Amino acid sequence: MQDTHIALAHGNGGRFMQELIQELFARHLANPDLDTRTDAATLPPLPEGDVMVSTDGFTVQPLEFPGGNIGSLAAHGTINDLAVAGADPKYFTLNCFIEEGLEVALLDRAIGALGASAAAAGVRVVAGDTKVVRRGEGGGIYLATTGIGIRPVGVDLGLDRIREGDRIIVSGPVGDHGIAVMLAREQFGLRGDLHSDAASVLPLTRAVRALEGIRFMRDPTRGGLATVAHEIHKSTGLAVRLQGPSIPIRDPVQSVCDMLGYDPLYLACEGRVVAVADPAASGHILEAWRSLAEGSEAVDIGEVAEGRHAVTMVTDIGGERILEELEDDPLPRIC
Amino acid sequence: MQDTHIALAHGNGGRFMQELIQELFARHLANPDLDTRTDAATLPPLPEGDVMVSTDGFTVQPLEFPGGNIGSLAAHGTINDLAVAGADPKYFTLNCFIEEGLEVALLDRAIGALGASAAAAGVRVVAGDTKVVRRGEGGGIYLATTGIGIRPVGVDLGLDRIREGDRIIVSGPVGDHGIAVMLAREQFGLRGDLHSDAASVLPLTRAVRALEGIRFMRDPTRGGLATVAHEIHKSTGLAVRLQGPSIPIRDPVQSVCDMLGYDPLYLACEGRVVAVADPAASGHILEAWRSLAEGSEAVDIGEVAEGRHAVTMVTDIGGERILEELEDDPLPRIC
Repeated sequence: MQDTHIALAHGNGGRFMQELIQELFARHLANPDLDTRTDAATLPPLPEGDVMVSTDGFTVQPLEFPGGNIGSLAAHGTINDLAVAGADPKYFTLNCFIEEGLEVALLDRAIGALGASAAAAGVRVVAGDTKVVRRGEGGGIYLATTGIGIRPVGVDLGLDRIREGDRIIVSGPVGDHGIAVMLAREQFGLRGDLHSDAASVLPLTRAVRALEGIRFMRDPTRGGLATVAHEIHKSTGLAVRLQGPSIPIRDPVQSVCDMLGYDPLYLACEGRVVAVADPAASGHILEAWRSLAEGSEAVDIGEVAEGRHAVTMVTDIGGERILEELEDDPLPRIC
Repeated sequence: MQDTHIALAHGNGGRFMQELIQELFARHLANPDLDTRTDAATLPPLPEGDVMVSTDGFTVQPLEFPGGNIGSLAAHGTINDLAVAGADPKYFTLNCFIEEGLEVALLDRAIGALGASAAAAGVRVVAGDTKVVRRGEGGGIYLATTGIGIRPVGVDLGLDRIREGDRIIVSGPVGDHGIAVMLAREQFGLRGDLHSDAASVLPLTRAVRALEGIRFMRDPTRGGLATVAHEIHKSTGLAVRLQGPSIPIRDPVQSVCDMLGYDPLYLACEGRVVAVADPAASGHILEAWRSLAEGSEAVDIGEVAEGRHAVTMVTDIGGERILEELEDDPLPRIC
């Protein structure tokens, strides 16, 4: 297509929209199960196992940041939601809401990254829809990805399986994504060598999902690690006790947080997994994860226990700090 | 929830978002397969047939119009995409992009209408995601619905099945949705008693999808009837010849179009079906549709034939008018 910027006509169902779909979307997302001329895609017969479905919307600002862009984020976000549920993601649908005036080259990079991330995880995009909204009525691009996956027979994970005494393990440092996106906004004049952790967690979840004694996995996105801890508390009625000194946080992340008053435990990760497992299994999870590049910094960070407060953290000096449920948004449009 | 307007904190993954999800979304969308605490929903075993997937985004402005709102439209749009493919829609996922400052009561009406429309079609919402964008970065609400449906064994529809000599049938008058939404914008100071035709077409498609000789169905949404005709031409290489005097258009729709210079054949419908069938089957389709309230005004409007021009229309006075492919957007944000 010859246009350098998106016009309203790229969303009207006519010739310009067909060109955009064929020359940009189909080029990056082509696969034998994608037919852009149909109203509904027919899936090949699904493999044995439970059919799982997940959906997520993406409004990250800026649209590109160190370590990714809104397209790779939209792929990884839905891949990861299915992965932590124990499933293998198979098929995606994609919704784009594009603001009039967006640079076509930027859209091309975003959809290119989405296509590459999906393909790397074995996911095929089978259907999509594009809407163009008037200048001033959008934020450049908003994306939504819906994923269909298959959870192999025998994998059983859920908040309801968590028991008193279970250990909590995290696959790597927390808060990188939140801080990397914030620095990319440049509003603070800060620059770091930080990259978002945004990535597929499928290698991590596949390595441990069928282990004896694993109870539950979640990716700590919006609201961060502290919010996952609160979900565990709400669902089980038990307390979550984190060991502050054990929680991996990169120095530059901690420095920026100290400077600006953020708590890294509430910042989004987009490529980490929190697992809950019985004490006998936690060692196996650590071992499996540390043998992978994605999990080389995995650590046991605490336990599920009886307790007076929902979520607490033992501090460096041995005190106990209460981690409240998130109310205000520390960083809007982070994913 | 006590808030009257949406704040950024309703999208941050914390307590306010949980309240919004529980007290608004879950209230309207509750069903045994919806668990708002999980990352991915597990579907019950799917019935026999082909699994089909479709997705659509909705940005209609205004958010409420005579005959529907963005919520009912988002339900009917994806129900209809699966329906015209010959499938029964079963499960939905829902994405909401909400602009900070939106009235909670309006959101409540939209999600209420979405839930009621889905339930009426036998569809369960199984997963969802909500993002809140800053004031000025959205259009009130944008929605995306993704539907999973099952096409019964033996149903076989597609553009590739269309043959020379096939008839084209439309289930009712065209252009009502486009004109109703446009009038609701009030920018022309016009008022009519027009309602959008937005509705589920599932009764129509179920009645005819397994008939001998039916080739293809589509709902003429963005770009209208003329755009469906162009899709048929592009896919088959054959011409589409419409009989102008046969095409049902309500008087007030034609009047408004005449006044403002729109062509109703390019305006969106959201509750009509265009079917292509061999001549022997077209009578059976007309009979089946006319026995239903949704199809009481169904008519045969033309044929697929060899021809020099892609899409033409025989006019009232017997002339032939060429219907060009849509380029400019006559009415943006119509769906």
